[in-house]
Amino acid sequence: MRANSNNTEENKALTLMIFGATGDLTHRKLLPALYHLMAEKQLPDETRVIAIGRRDLSEEEYRASVRQSVARHSRSGVDETHLEEFINALSYHQMEFVSDPESYQGFKKRLEKIEKNYTQPAVRLFFLAVAPEFFGVIVSHLKANKLAVRRNPDHRVMIEKPFGSDLASARALNAIISDALDERQVYRIDHYLGKEMIRNILALRFGNSLFEPLWNHNYIDNIQITASETLGVEGRGAYYEQAGILKDMLQNHLLQMLALITMEPPADLMPESIRDEKVKALRALRRYETTGACAEIALGQYVSGLINGESVPGYREEKDVASDSVTPTFIALRANVDNFRWGGVPIYIRAGKRMNKRCTQIVVEFKRLPGINYYPEFKNQPPNLLVIEVQPTEGIHFQINAKRPGNGFVVDQVEMNYAQSSRFQGNVPEAYEQLILEAYRANSSLFTRWDELEQSWQFVESIERNCQPDSHHYPTYSPGSQGPERADLLLKADGRAWHEIELRTENIIKKGSSH
Amino acid sequence: MRANSNNTEENKALTLMIFGATGDLTHRKLLPALYHLMAEKQLPDETRVIAIGRRDLSEEEYRASVRQSVARHSRSGVDETHLEEFINALSYHQMEFVSDPESYQGFKKRLEKIEKNYTQPAVRLFFLAVAPEFFGVIVSHLKANKLAVRRNPDHRVMIEKPFGSDLASARALNAIISDALDERQVYRIDHYLGKEMIRNILALRFGNSLFEPLWNHNYIDNIQITASETLGVEGRGAYYEQAGILKDMLQNHLLQMLALITMEPPADLMPESIRDEKVKALRALRRYETTGACAEIALGQYVSGLINGESVPGYREEKDVASDSVTPTFIALRANVDNFRWGGVPIYIRAGKRMNKRCTQIVVEFKRLPGINYYPEFKNQPPNLLVIEVQPTEGIHFQINAKRPGNGFVVDQVEMNYAQSSRFQGNVPEAYEQLILEAYRANSSLFTRWDELEQSWQFVESIERNCQPDSHHYPTYSPGSQGPERADLLLKADGRAWHEIELRTENIIKKGSSH
Repeated sequence: MRANSNNTEENKALTLMIFGATGDLTHRKLLPALYHLMAEKQLPDETRVIAIGRRDLSEEEYRASVRQSVARHSRSGVDETHLEEFINALSYHQMEFVSDPESYQGFKKRLEKIEKNYTQPAVRLFFLAVAPEFFGVIVSHLKANKLAVRRNPDHRVMIEKPFGSDLASARALNAIISDALDERQVYRIDHYLGKEMIRNILALRFGNSLFEPLWNHNYIDNIQITASETLGVEGRGAYYEQAGILKDMLQNHLLQMLALITMEPPADLMPESIRDEKVKALRALRRYETTGACAEIALGQYVSGLINGESVPGYREEKDVASDSVTPTFIALRANVDNFRWGGVPIYIRAGKRMNKRCTQIVVEFKRLPGINYYPEFKNQPPNLLVIEVQPTEGIHFQINAKRPGNGFVVDQVEMNYAQSSRFQGNVPEAYEQLILEAYRANSSLFTRWDELEQSWQFVESIERNCQPDSHHYPTYSPGSQGPERADLLLKADGRAWHEIELRTENIIKKGSSH
Repeated sequence: MRANSNNTEENKALTLMIFGATGDLTHRKLLPALYHLMAEKQLPDETRVIAIGRRDLSEEEYRASVRQSVARHSRSGVDETHLEEFINALSYHQMEFVSDPESYQGFKKRLEKIEKNYTQPAVRLFFLAVAPEFFGVIVSHLKANKLAVRRNPDHRVMIEKPFGSDLASARALNAIISDALDERQVYRIDHYLGKEMIRNILALRFGNSLFEPLWNHNYIDNIQITASETLGVEGRGAYYEQAGILKDMLQNHLLQMLALITMEPPADLMPESIRDEKVKALRALRRYETTGACAEIALGQYVSGLINGESVPGYREEKDVASDSVTPTFIALRANVDNFRWGGVPIYIRAGKRMNKRCTQIVVEFKRLPGINYYPEFKNQPPNLLVIEVQPTEGIHFQINAKRPGNGFVVDQVEMNYAQSSRFQGNVPEAYEQLILEAYRANSSLFTRWDELEQSWQFVESIERNCQPDSHHYPTYSPGSQGPERADLLLKADGRAWHEIELRTENIIKKGSSH
């Protein structure tokens, strides 16, 4: 089972069981993703979906709500025939999956009845789209009722984020899960790993002789990873108070991007080989533990103000947020990957809510040629940049230098774009489509292994433990800005600045997918 | 005086004297170029143009013909006010500049009268747009009449190609010229050096850290330089019988491109420093002198046939061409630059008339990553290419590999284009504008120094002397083809093939400039 998965799994039947049938994630993401996968015949003919919820709904009521959700959230139009096929493959199952352990036996009977009708052996894929506190208890029940049996590779559990709320709770959760299942049966979701341009990092780095020889401290000056949102906490203050930007973005998405960008070439493209290298990169990531280390961190909270002419509340004024909250909604940091490849190359990371634009991108800034200093004509040339744009546009972007057309010899910056979302408009699958499909194919490279998580938590806790600002002097930033001033000073102190790259959007229609 | 010329010359007045007032080059290229330079105020206010011809024309007759030519051949529309300004700065001078040495005294009086009216010291720029056999005699007369005085850097002569018809005649011509003028007063034209993308080679190579570290035998597999035309000899059979593809294209344009692509970084961007490096590259170019060397050469002549549905004659049937001609209209060769940077990297060159398309481009093919062989998923990936498109479109083009959007992990070729002629449509100056302007600025980097020419002739003569096919078995190719089969076999023997790159032309309007 490789990153390029063409394997024997595809003959097996599939039962996908979603815990959390009526939740937001299920309706906005999972059901539309499943619709597209089935419409495009990516899943086996023998696929059944069982949506499991606590609410007392009839099959008809549930199906009606699914029709609505798919029509509303599908990435392209909905084909009525395909929609009906999808609806026919879908059932609703009501059960008290947290409070009533007995209910699992009834469910098991229904599942076994379905499985009897398959002509092929079936994969049992459990998708836990529920509140994180229920992950452990559901897995225990699945084990107790032999719905998921350890060492049976066809019994798999997909677990949404967050996996724990700190290192200790993540370890506790993992103890329950590893008591029930082998690591290879667990598919911990980081939906960024399903995003097109993130999956593309491997192909770009290891498929191009233009990049690979330059991908080290000799030729790269710094790397900047940005994930900014214009939205605030949008009514999810209670969740956000626990998570903050560190657990909502840094511990998972941003560190995964960092790992893919900085890891060594894996021995092959098998999922475990890739994850081995990611773990190594995360282990080399310097913790914030020495004196003065926190000078490399800038946290912040947004205050009230205007964004796009609209008045918005500050973070401490949001519903369910403490008026003296010390939860950061912004972070910028200078990360250091302490190994032979990256020694001396800062990796700047920043993420925030209520910022000036919605944008996730990776900017690789190459060192200036030493020889250039001897040519006064080239002296003020900007460095070469490779930009991997993850969202809202998906694409690759180069900034190089060329002679300005015309008489004389003036050197100018030139942009070269490859905008994927324009070329394949409407055909680019959403992250969850890729995640479900690859979990069916038993390709774990798009999922987070426990040791990756453990390293991420250690890194994030080193910040939480040592770098917490005082509640009374918490750094703030205005909505629609680029974060607190200190985020800029961080780079200024190194003689650098954040790149504010705007992909040229002529002919590029932006996709409207969520973060 | 640098490649980036901002110098004190620009205060001087300019008298541009064109020998060959009624010729094709003057009307199609020089006069439109001068019109644009003056309309755009690139030349000094005190600029006078004297067109010198043997025909007995009145000032009015000549000016009328100039108005027509500019309107017809200008790269963008003509502004009436600017056209009248240009016409007013222009005079016609009739003289027998070959047969009547006395006539130069009358011309000198007229020139001195003009110069008296300037408020600034003036540059005398003589442009020899006449048949090559007259280059020497005109320069002798200029010397005898002290119109051009040795060691006066303001007296300059621009000389069209061809400079000699072989090494001996080039040396003879150079003896006459160097008897009259210092090397720095001589501006030997290779109009390819005025082309935008050729001037861009320096900026691309030495202004980008993405390219420079890779620009050697460690990372480059081979380089392909192509200059193909769809036209035949177009009535110029007499000229072409003497020149052939070797002297019409290889000795000048193609070897100049090769020199710019392969030369070492110059110590600075001063013209002499650049030319020093070009000569070194040309000296390292292996001659065809050893046994078997001619196996690296493919010559050919086009036969009659159809091109774009139109029936065209074969080369030997063209007017003024011998029926047993051994003049090649096509050449492909494997060149070897025998130095530390390029050892083992073949540089394939091909040029021909009556080929399948009009296209001048340089393709740099990078080596495949060694590591790629360990990833079966990447095994069949095409190599990375950098394409510099000189004409008809001007642009830079990358071919890299990226993940194909969609589920699974399939790696695909991706194209990134920077099409200059679309971005700056109508604003890109023609080669002759740049050449005249830089000669006025005393920037000789766009002109060929004698030692470059000498090396080029030696190289070309080694082919002529050793690799001439027999008249009875001369290799042929059909019009509209890619040349004789042997041109393909040449690369096939090395396990390679010519890249047939088509720049994607959406949104790119092709320019209609000549070769």
